[in-house]
Amino acid sequence: MTGTAPAPFTADDYRARMDRAARAAADAGLAGLLVAPGPDLVWLTGYTPPAATERLTLLVLAPGRAPVLVVPTLEAPDAARAPGAGALSLRDWTDGKDPYAATAALLDVSGRFGISDNAWAMHLLGLQRVLPGTSHVSLTEALPMLRAVKDAAELDLMAAAGAAADATFEEIRKVPFAGRTESEVGADLAGLLRRFGHSQVDFTIVASGPNGANPHHEVGDRVIERGDMVVLDFGGLKDGYGSDTSRTVHVGEPTDEERRVHDLVREAQEAGFRAVQPGAACQEVDRAARAVIEAAGYGEYFIHRTGHGIGVTTHEPPYMIEGERQPLVPGMCFSVEPGVYLPGRFGVRIEDIVTVTEDGGRRLNTTDREMVIVD
Amino acid sequence: MTGTAPAPFTADDYRARMDRAARAAADAGLAGLLVAPGPDLVWLTGYTPPAATERLTLLVLAPGRAPVLVVPTLEAPDAARAPGAGALSLRDWTDGKDPYAATAALLDVSGRFGISDNAWAMHLLGLQRVLPGTSHVSLTEALPMLRAVKDAAELDLMAAAGAAADATFEEIRKVPFAGRTESEVGADLAGLLRRFGHSQVDFTIVASGPNGANPHHEVGDRVIERGDMVVLDFGGLKDGYGSDTSRTVHVGEPTDEERRVHDLVREAQEAGFRAVQPGAACQEVDRAARAVIEAAGYGEYFIHRTGHGIGVTTHEPPYMIEGERQPLVPGMCFSVEPGVYLPGRFGVRIEDIVTVTEDGGRRLNTTDREMVIVD
Repeated sequence: MTGTAPAPFTADDYRARMDRAARAAADAGLAGLLVAPGPDLVWLTGYTPPAATERLTLLVLAPGRAPVLVVPTLEAPDAARAPGAGALSLRDWTDGKDPYAATAALLDVSGRFGISDNAWAMHLLGLQRVLPGTSHVSLTEALPMLRAVKDAAELDLMAAAGAAADATFEEIRKVPFAGRTESEVGADLAGLLRRFGHSQVDFTIVASGPNGANPHHEVGDRVIERGDMVVLDFGGLKDGYGSDTSRTVHVGEPTDEERRVHDLVREAQEAGFRAVQPGAACQEVDRAARAVIEAAGYGEYFIHRTGHGIGVTTHEPPYMIEGERQPLVPGMCFSVEPGVYLPGRFGVRIEDIVTVTEDGGRRLNTTDREMVIVD
Repeated sequence: MTGTAPAPFTADDYRARMDRAARAAADAGLAGLLVAPGPDLVWLTGYTPPAATERLTLLVLAPGRAPVLVVPTLEAPDAARAPGAGALSLRDWTDGKDPYAATAALLDVSGRFGISDNAWAMHLLGLQRVLPGTSHVSLTEALPMLRAVKDAAELDLMAAAGAAADATFEEIRKVPFAGRTESEVGADLAGLLRRFGHSQVDFTIVASGPNGANPHHEVGDRVIERGDMVVLDFGGLKDGYGSDTSRTVHVGEPTDEERRVHDLVREAQEAGFRAVQPGAACQEVDRAARAVIEAAGYGEYFIHRTGHGIGVTTHEPPYMIEGERQPLVPGMCFSVEPGVYLPGRFGVRIEDIVTVTEDGGRRLNTTDREMVIVD
C-alpha cells in the first residue's frame, strides 16, 4: 500500500517548487539536487513509488535544466500518474541495466550535489562510483530550509491537520484511562486520528506513570492506574500534511508536586511560544522554554530539544535547539514541546505546533493546556 | 508505531548471527560492517528504533571486537530492551553532539566497510567526513547472501507465513469479485492476512482486466467486471518473516486465449520450480521459466525477473535474474513468479515462495495453480 493521500496540488504548483529548489541549489553553490523517494520527492513532485526498494528512483534537478525523474521501467506508469508528472520528464531503466550510468548521463561530471538525507547509501555509493569527480552533501545540510516556509495553501492544510489532532484530544479525554493498558488508549488515539481525517498515523504515545519519564516511550502493556500522570503525544498526516500535539493528563486528582511540575512545563511552553518572532533565531525558542525550567531547578530533567519542524513529515528542520541560529521566517511551522522527566516517577510534556506570522507565533493546536483530569 | 512483532529468538541467537556476519566480513576483506535500522539490524539484533529519523543508530561489527550499537540517548532505553541487547554494548550520544565522531572512535581509520544498503546517505556522508581514509561498499554488494540461507527455526517461520498467505487465498476465492472495486478486494486481502497472523501487510495487489498488464499496479477504483482476469499478489510479515504469493483468478468463464496464457504461465512457473537445485545458479531459474514463455512467442510480454529472495523482508537478494551466477544453497528462500502482461488487455502471474533443499525445491505455497474461477 502506498500510504498517504496526496495533497491537492497541481503540476504548476510542483513546477514552481522544483524551480525554487533549483534556484536555491544554485544560490548555495551546488551543481544540482538528487532527490530520493520520501518527503523531498513528495513535496517536489507529489510522487511516492509503489514501494521503497533497492531499485533507483531519483529526481535530478539542476539550475537551467528541465527536471528529470529516473525510475525503474516497471514503475514508470505509476510515476506518469504522479500529480507533478506534467512538470518533469521520465527516464526509465530496466532490471539488469545500470541505473547509475543512466543518471550520470544527466549530470555534470564534476561539482557538488545535494542528495536527500534518506537516499539509500547504496545509491549514493553507486553515484560516487560512476562520477568520481563529484561530491555530495546532505540536502538538509545544504538547504535545511527548502521545505520549511509554507505557503498559504500549505498553512491551510497544516491548520486542518492540527484541528483534527485537537478534535482527537477532545474525544480521548472522555475515554476511560484507569484499568486499561497504554496500548488500548493508543489504539483509541489512532482510531480517532483516522476518524478525523488522518490517512497516516505516525505515533500514538501513551506514557503512563514511570513510563512518562522516557520521552520516547510509545505504548506498552502497562495498565494505567488511578493516580498516574499520562503523557499523550500523537500525530500523523492528513491530506499530506502533519499534526503533532502533546498533552499530559492525570487520572484522578494530582499531588501538589505533579501539579507544580505540570504548571512549570506549561509556563515553559508559553515562554517558548512567546519567543516566536520573525527574525529570532531558532535557539531563542529553546532558550526561552529552557530558562523557565532551569530557574525552577528542573533543568537536568528537560533532556531533549524544545522543538522540530513539521510539514509533509511530522519531524524535520528547523530544530529549536541551542546552536541553531537560523532566523524564524513567516510560514515556518514547528513544535514547541518542553518537558520534564523524573526517572522512575513521571513525566510531563506539553506541545503545540506553532507557525510564524509577521506578528509573532500562531498556535495550530488550541486545546486546554491546563492539566486535564481523566477517569 | 514500530510495526512488526519480533521473531522468537534469544540473545544467543543474535550473538551467533553477529559472529557469523563479522566472520563473513573478514572473509570478504572488509574491516567491518556498519548496520543501519532496517532488515539487517532486525536480523542481527532484533532491534527496530521507535522511528526512522535523522538521528544516527548504527551497529558496528568488526572481526575480533565486541559488537557496539550507537544510539541516540533518548532511544537507549528502547535499545536496551531489544532481544539481542544482551549480545552487544550500547554507546549513546546526545542531541547536539556529533554522532559520527562517536562512531569513528569505534572504527579503524582506514579500511573498507560494508554499510547497509538503506543506511541514510546523510549518515554515510557524515562517516566519510570523519574517516576520510575509509571506503564503503553496500552490504548487499559485499555480502549479498548474509541473510539468504535460513536455519531450521527460520524455515519454520517462513513456512508458517506461507501457510497463512495460502489460507488467505482459500478465503479470498470465496468472496464476490464482480461489481466490487479492486480496493475493496484488496482490503479483504489485508484483513485476511492479519486474521491469519500477519502483523504487517506489505502489499495487496488486485489488478483486474487491463490493470493486470501493469505488474506493479496495486489496487485502484476500477470496478471488477465479469470476464476479467484478476492478478492477486499479496504478502507481508508474520512473526517477523515474510510471505508473498500470486494467483491469477478469472471472474466467470475465461476465453480460450485467457486459458492458454494462464496455462503457459503455470508451465513456466513449474519449469522455474524444477530448475531449483543446490548448486544451480540463480539465473538458471530465470532461464528455465523464461524459455517456456519465449518458446510460446510471449517472451516480450514477460517484463520482469523471475524472482527475489525473501526472509525478514518480503523483497531481498538473491534475485532470480539473467546474470546472477550465485549458486543456490539449501535454506535459501525466494519467489518463482513468471508472468505475461498484454498491454491494455490483461496479465497473468503465478508465484510461490520456494526454499532450496538437498533434493531440489520445496514450495512454501501450495494452493491450486490451475486457474480458479471466482464470482
